[in-house]
This record gives sequence, C-alpha cells and structure tokens, in this order.
Amino acid sequence: VSRAEPLDLLDEAHSGSRVALARLLTIVESGGTRHRELVAAAYAVPPPYVLGLTGPPGAGKSTLVDGLIATGLEVGDRGGPLPEIAVVAIDPSSPFTGGAILGDRVRMQSHATDERVYIRSMATRGHLGGLSLAVPDATRVLGRVGFALVVVETVGVGQMEVDIASAADSTVVVLNPGWGDSMQANKAGLLEVADVFVVNKADRPLVRETRRDLEQMLDLGESRPWRPPIIETIATSATGVAALWAAVNDHRSHLEESGELATRRRRRTREGLIGVLAAESRARSRALAHGERFEAAVDAIAEGTIDPYRAADELLD
Amino acid sequence: VSRAEPLDLLDEAHSGSRVALARLLTIVESGGTRHRELVAAAYAVPPPYVLGLTGPPGAGKSTLVDGLIATGLEVGDRGGPLPEIAVVAIDPSSPFTGGAILGDRVRMQSHATDERVYIRSMATRGHLGGLSLAVPDATRVLGRVGFALVVVETVGVGQMEVDIASAADSTVVVLNPGWGDSMQANKAGLLEVADVFVVNKADRPLVRETRRDLEQMLDLGESRPWRPPIIETIATSATGVAALWAAVNDHRSHLEESGELATRRRRRTREGLIGVLAAESRARSRALAHGERFEAAVDAIAEGTIDPYRAADELLD
Repeated sequence: VSRAEPLDLLDEAHSGSRVALARLLTIVESGGTRHRELVAAAYAVPPPYVLGLTGPPGAGKSTLVDGLIATGLEVGDRGGPLPEIAVVAIDPSSPFTGGAILGDRVRMQSHATDERVYIRSMATRGHLGGLSLAVPDATRVLGRVGFALVVVETVGVGQMEVDIASAADSTVVVLNPGWGDSMQANKAGLLEVADVFVVNKADRPLVRETRRDLEQMLDLGESRPWRPPIIETIATSATGVAALWAAVNDHRSHLEESGELATRRRRRTREGLIGVLAAESRARSRALAHGERFEAAVDAIAEGTIDPYRAADELLD
Repeated sequence: VSRAEPLDLLDEAHSGSRVALARLLTIVESGGTRHRELVAAAYAVPPPYVLGLTGPPGAGKSTLVDGLIATGLEVGDRGGPLPEIAVVAIDPSSPFTGGAILGDRVRMQSHATDERVYIRSMATRGHLGGLSLAVPDATRVLGRVGFALVVVETVGVGQMEVDIASAADSTVVVLNPGWGDSMQANKAGLLEVADVFVVNKADRPLVRETRRDLEQMLDLGESRPWRPPIIETIATSATGVAALWAAVNDHRSHLEESGELATRRRRRTREGLIGVLAAESRARSRALAHGERFEAAVDAIAEGTIDPYRAADELLD
C-alpha cells in the first residue's frame, strides 16, 4: 500500500497518472484520515457532470455505456468532444469487486486499452458511510483530477443500487422489451428516478407494448417540466446510442437552463450531509462502546443506579 | 391518551390495575419523555426472569405458552406456584399488532380471562431503538410492577425475531418433526440461541429423525457446561409440557448455580447500552439535520468552502 500523500497523488493523477488515480479511489473506499484529506481537496472544486445508469441485470447497461463512451469521445457535448471519460461501476450485492464487474470490464473492452477512458469498479473497504457516500466522494475526486463526465453504472435493482445511480445529474433507466413482468418489485422506484428511459434490445418482441406501458405510466404520473423520453436501442450494434447521447445532452441543457441543476445538486448536498452526519455519529457512538467509562456505565446499570438511556446520554455528552 | 404520570401508573399497576399496566407498555412502545421517566424507575429494581420462545410460524408456540402458563401457575418454581405471569408477544414482520398476534390471543384463550395472566402484543410506535430495545424495557417494567416471570414469544424466524427471543435468561426453540427441510435459512442462528429444544407435534412422523439430527448438531458444536435438552411435546393435549417446564427450571438452576446468569445479564446489559448509544446518537444526528446551522453548512459545501465530513464534525461538536 502506497503511503504517498493524497495531495501528491491528486497532482500526479491530474497529470494523467492512472496509477495515482487508482490509489486515490482506494483511499476513498477505505475511509480514514487520508480520505478526509482527500475529500477536503476534492470538494473544493465544482463537481463533474454525473450520468447514472441503472436497470435490471442483463439489460445491457455495460454495452450501452461502451457505446456512450464512444459517442462522448467523438461527439462530446456543447464544448466539443470530451478528452476523457470515467466510469464507476458498482455491484453492492457482491461482497467482492469480481463477478459481474469483471464481466463489465470485458463488455467494455473496446475501451479497455483506451487511455482516454478510466473504468473503475468500487467496493467499500471501510468507508464509514458505505457506497452511498463513497460513490459521490469518488465522483468528486474524479472531477478534481479533471474528468468533466463521470458515468456511474449500478448492477442490480435493489433500492440501494437505484439510489446510488440516481444520485446523478441525469439518470438513465435501462429496460428491455417486456420488462414489466420481471420487475414488479421495484418498478415505482425505477420510474421515479428516470430522466431518460432506454428500451434496449429493441429488436426483440414487445417493444411497442413496453413503450406504450411506459408512456401510460408517465401520463398517470405528476406532470413535470421534463418528460423523460423513451429511447429504443440495440446496444450490441450501437443502434440508437447517438439518440440516447443526444437525449442525455438535452436533459442536461434542460437542467442548466431551468436552474434545476443547481436545485438538484443542492438537494444532493443536503442529503449527503445528512448521510455523513449519520455515519459520523454512528462511528462516534461505536467509539464510546468500550473502555473504562463504558464499563463503569454497564456496572451502574447492572446495579440499578442508572438506566441505560441516562447512561447513554452521559456517555454522549 | 392518558396524561397520567408514569410513576402514578406504576403504583396503580403494582396494585393490580391492568389498565395502568397497558398504559405503561404503550409508553414503552412510544418512547419520548414519559418513557425516560418510566425506565428510570423500572431499571432501579432487579429484572424478572425472562423466558424466550422462538421458532418458525405454525410450530405451536402459542399453544405451548398456554401450557407453560398453566404449569407455572400450578407448579411454579422453587418458590412455589407463581402468583402471576406476563406474556409479551412480538411479530416484528407485521406493521400492525393484529394478524398473527390476534390469533395468538385466541390460541392462548384458556387464560384470556385469567387475571393472574397478562398477555400483551407489542409493536413500536416511536421507540427510537425499535423492538430490540422496547422489549427489554417492557420486561423491566413488568418486573417493576411485580411479575417474577415474563415470557417473550416471537413470531417468525428472521434474525431480529431470534435476537429478541434470545435476549432472555432461558431461550426455548420450538421446532416440529422434519423441521430441517423448511428451515435451512436460519438453522444455525436458531441452534446457537437454544437453551432448550422442543420438538412439538411429536405425534407426527419423523420425530426420531429430528431428535437424532439435533443430537448430531449438538455433538458437532462446541462442548459447553449446559447441553440443551430436547423435549418432545404435543402442545394441543399438554403432553410433555410439564417436562418442558422442568427443563426450563433446570436451566435456570444451572444458570444461577454456575454464575452464568450474572454473566449473561451483564452481557445483555452491555449490548443493551450499545444499542441505546446507537439509537440516541442516531436521534441526535437527525436533530442536527435541519435548522439554520445545518442550512449554512449545506451552503458552505455547495460553495466549496468546506467538505461534508468537516461540516458534519463541526455540527456534531
């Protein structure tokens, strides 16, 4: 394990060192003192644009990300082609970063050796707030070293995966034709976070029915200034990927022009601070749960001279 | 909702008022200021003996409890017949106290009108630590008003149900013949907490195999001073209930004579205090998550003048 200082690593990563960048993201995963030093620097610069992708396993997210990377590097945004793009891949259900994520890297292999693309799978190795805090921290570190766009891809459809992917500026929900049957459990959650819908594998049956279902659900929902478009893609042949890229850029323009981007980011900042407060106070209470004062409190409760609630208050104060 | 003071209610409940006792347990469920006042009094006296019963739904726990109550009132412990017994029934999987619990009351109907028996189903209505703190508090309140024995029965086999039932002085795990097949998920958890095994519905096939399986598992486990006996019962005809009651009393004698009772209770006191610490600090961090100072911190993070971790520290300090 490198003992290089986070600020030195930031300089090296900013100059293009992928080794330094990998170490920085390991620091994010690990939490601790160096993490604190790192986030102090990372949060001092504006965040990158974060694009979240979520949807059920096997929907084709990684292949779509592969296509989006190609389009982003070629077409880019209003500022022209993007010089580089980072991908953060998350599989919170896996205790290791292997499994599905290694599969992702294979599926994204057209960019595996492209030095303009940085792909990183993330796990928590000690970060006190888990992935829901580690991923935003990682995007800020990537922004700090110069990435203008970070794609966060989550594998799985639990609420946690959806929450992580939707802590993005624009969230793409990737479905397949006929998805509704297999996805009842978290349908509402997915629908609520979508800024853009993708019906991938659009060469399969039931595309029209799936589109109609989504349209109906959007009709039933609250009317909002932005109605999520539904983009049909066949990721394996890059069909529709340019349209998806354009839809994401449209959403971004909408957010910027309406002022909604600032509103969303402030809401995320609030939620992030609440998450850090909870994690920090959890860590503090754990630190109080041993040692002399703690054992004395246990004795006092056992003797009946204090109840556990007053004892906890005295330890916390 | 009564506004009577907890200490007055304790006096009334101690004099036999079931209405006052019900109000006290509602105060436990609800948390808040009156709960604090109540636990301060409840923890000042020694705890009652707590007997936990857990096992899969449909195993016959409530009918067994019914039989144990009858035996306890008749035979009692070394001090003679028990003048009264309390039962706390928990179904954490149910958002209401209805459903299975109402069924329990029906199954325990032979004592529904017996004034020596107090049966209460519990839910959390605001207690900051949830049922895993509310149930121990409830047993202490029952002890404070004079119950020498409290039976805690949990419905369901999740880890939470097992944890609640096993936060007892003696824990009875109720199974049925052939249980192994349906119970793989939490088998180890159930085995670990058992002080006494019951194979209920022992008039069904596979009793011998079930006993043999349990014996083998006990042989494989660590050798301990107390080997959990396996009692066969047919709760519906009270067959074996006297033997179960005797086994529980044996376990109690073992705990008392070996000094293990004090060790266990101290461990539970430690774990309880850790739980209260966590719940209290969670409540405190929630209280910090709004207001002027919090919004100023969000502003500062958004402006890049502070990171969320330092901001949380400043709010917590």
